[in-house]
Amino acid sequence: MAESQGLILGPSRDFTRGKYFTYVRTQYTNPRTGTSGYWEHVRMNVPGRIVAVIPITSNGEVVLTKTFRVPLNSWVLEACVGLMDKEGKNEIEIAQAELREELGYEAVAYDFLFAGPFNTGLVNAEMAYYIAYGAHKVCEPQLEDSEAIEPVVVPINKLSHYLLNPPQGLLVDVKLFGVLYFLTRLKI
Amino acid sequence: MAESQGLILGPSRDFTRGKYFTYVRTQYTNPRTGTSGYWEHVRMNVPGRIVAVIPITSNGEVVLTKTFRVPLNSWVLEACVGLMDKEGKNEIEIAQAELREELGYEAVAYDFLFAGPFNTGLVNAEMAYYIAYGAHKVCEPQLEDSEAIEPVVVPINKLSHYLLNPPQGLLVDVKLFGVLYFLTRLKI
Repeated sequence: MAESQGLILGPSRDFTRGKYFTYVRTQYTNPRTGTSGYWEHVRMNVPGRIVAVIPITSNGEVVLTKTFRVPLNSWVLEACVGLMDKEGKNEIEIAQAELREELGYEAVAYDFLFAGPFNTGLVNAEMAYYIAYGAHKVCEPQLEDSEAIEPVVVPINKLSHYLLNPPQGLLVDVKLFGVLYFLTRLKI
Repeated sequence: MAESQGLILGPSRDFTRGKYFTYVRTQYTNPRTGTSGYWEHVRMNVPGRIVAVIPITSNGEVVLTKTFRVPLNSWVLEACVGLMDKEGKNEIEIAQAELREELGYEAVAYDFLFAGPFNTGLVNAEMAYYIAYGAHKVCEPQLEDSEAIEPVVVPINKLSHYLLNPPQGLLVDVKLFGVLYFLTRLKI
């Protein structure tokens, strides 16, 4: 690792600054070719990693979300996720809050699964996945005005088939195949 | 699926338009609450899906890339990828071109693996993964000025350990765990 220099970054210029992210161009110099240019990308305005929670029920089911996503103008099957925009909360507390707000569930125990970037050419966001054991419904979801979210409960032993054969019109977030890898590995 | 209405989208307004993507705000109305707002997001200017290629050698190795990513100011382990920005080429032809340009490899046969969105709250991009069998090095990579990319050859039976224990300073694109799921499933 240490010997690879990569691109050398110069100043960044902010163009449009939004609430959640900013459109940015950053100068770079490639030491291999000596040339410079700029890379257009997005910088998250919310600190920390995005938190995803994978609730597992005592019946061997995983609870996913069907979320209407404006950028795709479509429903998407994905994990319940939240930004670290609640003052003073750590990632597990964010996972707990999102699980209750988006799905109306609570869980008994949380474990870290995996984390990392997922759209590396565009944005500095990273996502941290937590598994939530003993998940059970406790209330109705409390959705925000910007949210259209429905729970999707799938038996874990049918998750692979469901992801590969989703209902018509439902896109599947490809990151769920990584979740499936971990559920298979954990033999849940 | 059909009964779920989701959010109703109104007009979009383009703010900064870049070469590869545009910062956009789109009005939405939530039929559940009757309220409206806008969603800030990114629209790709390049048509089609992003193509990722997973080359498999006859020695049972997978060839990944260590790519320096400006948005993260870091090297990232990920798949060899390309945009559909070469006139008239289909996804497999893009996969072939990127495999040769970024890694200096050719392959004998290509199969579709999986596809879908991966950053659903931010951007309309979708990624299509292809596996490339019989991959072998034929030339030196032909990198662009904006690219700092090195091949990383990992025996498939050690890929899980490598992804979970990467060299220090190397981020791992979480989508690779989805690739690992398919390689495990295919028993390659």
